[in-house]
Amino acid sequence: MPHIALDNELPGISGLMAHRPDTGAPLSDLADVLLRAPSSLSPGERELIAAYVSQLNSTEFCSASHGAFAAAQLPGGQGLVEAVLADPATAPVDGRLRALLAVAAEVRNAARPVSDEAIAAARAEGADDTALHDTVLIAAAFCMYNRYVSGLATELPEDGGYYGHAARRIVADGYRGTSARTD
Amino acid sequence: MPHIALDNELPGISGLMAHRPDTGAPLSDLADVLLRAPSSLSPGERELIAAYVSQLNSTEFCSASHGAFAAAQLPGGQGLVEAVLADPATAPVDGRLRALLAVAAEVRNAARPVSDEAIAAARAEGADDTALHDTVLIAAAFCMYNRYVSGLATELPEDGGYYGHAARRIVADGYRGTSARTD
Repeated sequence: MPHIALDNELPGISGLMAHRPDTGAPLSDLADVLLRAPSSLSPGERELIAAYVSQLNSTEFCSASHGAFAAAQLPGGQGLVEAVLADPATAPVDGRLRALLAVAAEVRNAARPVSDEAIAAARAEGADDTALHDTVLIAAAFCMYNRYVSGLATELPEDGGYYGHAARRIVADGYRGTSARTD
Repeated sequence: MPHIALDNELPGISGLMAHRPDTGAPLSDLADVLLRAPSSLSPGERELIAAYVSQLNSTEFCSASHGAFAAAQLPGGQGLVEAVLADPATAPVDGRLRALLAVAAEVRNAARPVSDEAIAAARAEGADDTALHDTVLIAAAFCMYNRYVSGLATELPEDGGYYGHAARRIVADGYRGTSARTD
C-alpha cells in the first residue's frame, strides 16, 4: 500500500502523477524531452538506458515500463531488452551503446564525475557531446523517478498487459498528458 | 573541466541549463513547483531538505546554492543551515522537519520504500501527506540534479558572492527563466 493516500488506483508513477498534476506536469515534460525529442540517440536506445538504470535500482515498475517502451522501438525487441538487462557487456548492442550503458551505470552508482576512462571509451565508439549529455541526464533522471516510485511504495499493475498497453500509448502519443486521470 | 563542451562559462547546473534549454526548461519548472509552490512545507524548509540531500551526495554546487536559498528564507539563517548540514539530529529545527530530514536521507540512500518507522515518526510530528510526498520527491529530484551536476564534472563558481547573488534572484523571481543566457 502506498505511504500516502492517492485519489486513484493507478499503479507506479501513473498514480502519483494523476494525484499530483502540479509535479506530474514537469516530470512528464522532462521524460518527453529526454526520451523522445531529437537526439543523436534513438528513442529506443534512450528507453533502453532508462530501463537499465531502473533495473540496477531494482524499481520493477520503471524497468518493466521502459523495457517495454524500448522493445517497441528497437529492431531487437523484447529479446534484446532482456539481454541488456541481464548483462550489457555481452548483449548484442553496438559498441557506442554498450559504452554509454557503462557511463549510465557510473552515474547511477553515485553523484560524482563520470570517470575519464568511461567518457573516453564512449567517444572512441562514436558518442558525441549530445549522446554523453543525454545519457548522463537520463541516468540521473531515473535515479529520481525510481526513488519517487519506490520510496512512496507505489503498487505494481495487476494486469499483465499493462506495460504493453502503455508502450503503444507512449510510442503513439508521448509522455505529455500521461498525468491525465484517463491514463 | 566539464566532460562536454558548453557554449558558456556559467558554473554548475546554470551552465548546463543555458547550454541545453530544451532539458533546462522542465528542470527549472520542476524546481519551481517543488521548492516554491504552495505546500504544507515552507520554501525555506524545502530548500533545507534540498541542501541536506545535496550535502549527503557531496555535490558542493547544489549544497552551497540551496543552503544559501534556505538561509535567505529561514529565520535561523546561515547558522541554522550549517547546523542542519553538520547534524540534523542535534540542529535546532522542530520535530516535524527533523523527521522529514530522516525520510529524505532514506530516499537518498537507495530507491526502495521509505521505512514504515520513518513515515510513522514524521506523521507523529505532524507531517501530512503533502509534506511526505514533497519530501520524498525533493530528495529524489536532488539525487538527479546532483548526479547531473557532478556526473558531467561541471565547475564551481570562482566568485565567492555567487551563491548569495543567486539566492536574492531565486527568492525574488523563482527558478523559471534560470536557463536564460543572461543568468
